[in-house]
This record gives sequence, structure tokens and C-alpha cells, in this order.
Amino acid sequence: MSETRVEAAIGDSEFDRDTAVVPRGPADPGVYDTELSPGWTIISAVNGGYLLALVGRALAHALPHPDPFTVSAHYLTASRPGPAVIRTETVRTGRTLSTGQASLFQLDDDGHEVERMRVLAAYGDLGALPDDVRTSAKPPQLPPYDQCLGPEDAPGDTPLPGSSAITERLALKLDPATLGWVLGAPSGRGEMRAWLGLADGRDPDPLSLLLAVDALPPTAFELGLKGWVPTVELTAHVRCRPAPGPLRVSVTTRNLAGGFLEEDAEVWDSADRLVAQSRQLARAKLD
Amino acid sequence: MSETRVEAAIGDSEFDRDTAVVPRGPADPGVYDTELSPGWTIISAVNGGYLLALVGRALAHALPHPDPFTVSAHYLTASRPGPAVIRTETVRTGRTLSTGQASLFQLDDDGHEVERMRVLAAYGDLGALPDDVRTSAKPPQLPPYDQCLGPEDAPGDTPLPGSSAITERLALKLDPATLGWVLGAPSGRGEMRAWLGLADGRDPDPLSLLLAVDALPPTAFELGLKGWVPTVELTAHVRCRPAPGPLRVSVTTRNLAGGFLEEDAEVWDSADRLVAQSRQLARAKLD
Repeated sequence: MSETRVEAAIGDSEFDRDTAVVPRGPADPGVYDTELSPGWTIISAVNGGYLLALVGRALAHALPHPDPFTVSAHYLTASRPGPAVIRTETVRTGRTLSTGQASLFQLDDDGHEVERMRVLAAYGDLGALPDDVRTSAKPPQLPPYDQCLGPEDAPGDTPLPGSSAITERLALKLDPATLGWVLGAPSGRGEMRAWLGLADGRDPDPLSLLLAVDALPPTAFELGLKGWVPTVELTAHVRCRPAPGPLRVSVTTRNLAGGFLEEDAEVWDSADRLVAQSRQLARAKLD
Repeated sequence: MSETRVEAAIGDSEFDRDTAVVPRGPADPGVYDTELSPGWTIISAVNGGYLLALVGRALAHALPHPDPFTVSAHYLTASRPGPAVIRTETVRTGRTLSTGQASLFQLDDDGHEVERMRVLAAYGDLGALPDDVRTSAKPPQLPPYDQCLGPEDAPGDTPLPGSSAITERLALKLDPATLGWVLGAPSGRGEMRAWLGLADGRDPDPLSLLLAVDALPPTAFELGLKGWVPTVELTAHVRCRPAPGPLRVSVTTRNLAGGFLEEDAEVWDSADRLVAQSRQLARAKLD
């Protein structure tokens, strides 16, 4: 996996720079200025996981606990690259968990503030948890990293028109068994599996896990849907500090009905620990 | 299943009366007075699903759309039977979905308002959805209703000390395969399965599904844990209006680690449709 192991470090990487938030300070407590980078867009959309990590960073600063434990985000309007403001509220402070709320705003063409997303989250200290594990979960079965395929391996034109800037930020190697859609032969199974890292080799941390849960192509593509699949709500649980090295991400959809579907994601680290789980409700464009 | 089919109707049942909310009117828009019934407590806790349904009813009144599609609740402090106030906010109104927020408050012993839970939710109209279904989900395997066991079948003393008022409100018939904990022989599998209805025969609707996702005993009991398992956050997706008749509920825990566990619930209706999915993050008291 050497191609993903270059120099960028946690705190000094594309991901860290592009999710930086600047507190306004005592005059405007809990308010952060930020800039949505065009580097995390796909087609015309700013990636929802990137937005979640960015708001998650603001909450990590605003709350007394450092790590997201459970984060629920409602996506209200489409974000665009450019300036944004995050307003946070400390809802409750406890000994082991604190609860916070945050909203991301941008200005529309008329200069009016528009809310892009709203987040409710509980933060704690993953480092303070006992290391007991009684899990029946098993890591996803994936071919070896070098036998999985990234956008650079795509035949001819990329299957996704428009921006694919995010593919340059991610080290994404998809399981060929979940790539039938690329060749126009979707499997009909709502599954997407991949090795995932950051292109500059920055190791995962709890904040980048919020990106990881929404970084793969939509499972809907393997169900034969061609349209985009906008997220209505996504909730992520971060369960463990990830070990260095590439993550394995498995996303599954079991129920596509009434024009909506759920996407369940599991993120596993190089130490074979289930480090994050997420579920989102998304709209499906049926054709 | 005749024992669950008596007279109470949707709108006129214990569940409807105990989740009633009274809008304060134009003087105090979006604010609702309610009373937390002692009828939905277990041990010393007011059931989290009951609270979710109650707040869900307030949002159904406050928002232009009738049905919860996705509801995320953070449980902040322990609710008690008695008066409560729900303050709602309409976050965004769209054509097919509206987003709302709600908080449930009670007065503490000093007369100060304390926030019990905070909810972010998207509402829509389940009746307006296309009836296409492309699902790979299968209903849970459960023995016939009459071969499952309810609290009334418990040997000797109930395994749960304290209040079990909620058991009188529910028609709950648990799969014997998930009842090892009752006899002190938990299976070690994080599974709980049951037929679920309301004791007065009131048929399920989208609001009662918010109760159904958190109405079974904790999966942690089958994992050999004895302590209570307080919910930190619960997100429920309601996917379909349930058909009349008892529900089948399956709850699974795959990852108990670091003193926390997830509980994934699936609710199926009598027409074999997956009508609700939920996931909660809960604290586990390890012994």
C-alpha cells in the first residue's frame, strides 16, 4: 500500500487545511468562519462527508470533549464551494459526553444567509474508553489493495460527468465486485466496498472518519440507478480511534422503496477494528 | 393473534392519549404542553421510544408534512412522569420534505427548566410516495405469535425490578430464542426479536413506529450485561405506512466496545414490508 504512504501528517494535510475553521473569538462565541474547498466536490455537489467533518471540527473546538461519538446531520440545501459560517451551541456538558448543535450557513446570490445543514452531536474522549471489545462484527471481505480499482483505472471517460475533484483527494480503491455500474452492468446488489485513504497519505483520525462514511460512490449505482442520490440525513457513530493505514469501507443498501433508500456504512481500520458505523437516508431518482 | 385485536382505534387509544400534545396557540407558536404518562416506564425510566413518539406528534402538528421520515433524538437527561413542554422550530419547508427541531423540557426540583431530549427530524407524506419497492431485506424469522412469550409468561419474579408499567401497554411476544437472559442463560448473541402490538389493540401508524423501534428489552441482556443501557442517540427512519396487525421487530447489536454499543432495529408490518429502521448508540454498563 506504499502508494498511499507519503508525507502529509494529521494536522498538516489537504484534509486538515480544507476543514479548518476559524473561531471569531469572545465577541462571537461558538461561531466559526470557514471556506468550503472546491477540492471535495463530485459532479456539482460538495461531498456530504467533507461537510460533516468540517462541522465536526467546529464542534470539537466548541465542546469540552474532543471526539465525535454520534453525529446526526440533516442536509437542508446544496452547499457550494466558498465562504461559510458555522454557528455552534453547547446543548449539554457532562462528565463523559457533551452534546452540541451546529449549523452551516452560506450567503445566497442576494446576500441572504441560507442554512445548508444542521447537526446534533454527542462528543466524548475516545482515548478514555476502556478497551474491552465484545463484537460479533467481521471486517468486510475485500480483495487485496492492489487488486482493487481507483478512478485512475476507469476505462475511457469517467462514468461520472462533471467535477471529480474529490477523487484527487482520496486514495480510493474499489472492490471490482462492486464496480459493475462503471461498465453499465450493475450487479443489482446494493453494495459498495473499498480501501480508503487520503491521497496525501494523511492517516485517519476520528474527524476523517466522518468523511469516510460518505466517500464511496452511491450503492444506488449498483442497483442500476443512474441519477444522483442526495442525502437527507446521515448519522455516524465513531467507536474507536483508527490505527494508521488505509481504511476498509463497506456500504450496504437493503431497502430501496418509495423513492428513498438507506445506506449503511461500516469503516474498519488496519487493526481490524470497527471504527465507525453510519446510516443515511437518501432520495433515489428512479428511472 | 386475536388477543391483540380489541377495540381501541388510531386516535382513540392509550398510546394516543398518552402522547397527546396541546398547542399553546398563536401567543406561543410551536410550543406544546404535554404530560409524560407513568404508563410507559420500565424500572425507573420513561421509555425512549414513547418520548420519541410524543415529540414526533408535536412535530407532526408543527410541520406542514404529516409523517416522520427520519428522526434523530439525543437523550440529554432522564425524563420523569409528569408535565413537560415541547418547543418546536420549523427549520426548512420544502415541497416533499420539511425539517424541524424540537426539545422536550421539564422542571427540576428547584423549578428550573431542564432539557430532556433534543430532536432533529425530516417529515414528509408517506401516502404520497410511489409504491415501488426494490428491497433485498427479508423479514425476521420468528416463531408463530402463540409460540412467543410475553411478560405474563415470565417464570416467578420478573427479571426486571421496579416498574414494568410499559409491559401493560404493549402486546409484546418475544422469540424464546432471545430470552435466555430471563433464565440467567443469555445466548451471547446481541439479538432480540418479538411480535409487537399495543395492548388495547390500536393498530400501528407512523407515530407508533417511533415507539416500536425502542420497545424491546435491551439486546445487551442477551450479551450477558445486567445493567441498564441508556440511549445516547437514536435515529429512526419510517419508510412506509404500516398495515394493520402486529408488527415484527428485530433488534441486533454487532459491536459492543469501549462501554458503548449500537442497537439496530427493523420493524416489519403484517404485509411483510420493512416499515421502519433505527439505530441507537447506547452506553453499556459492563460487569
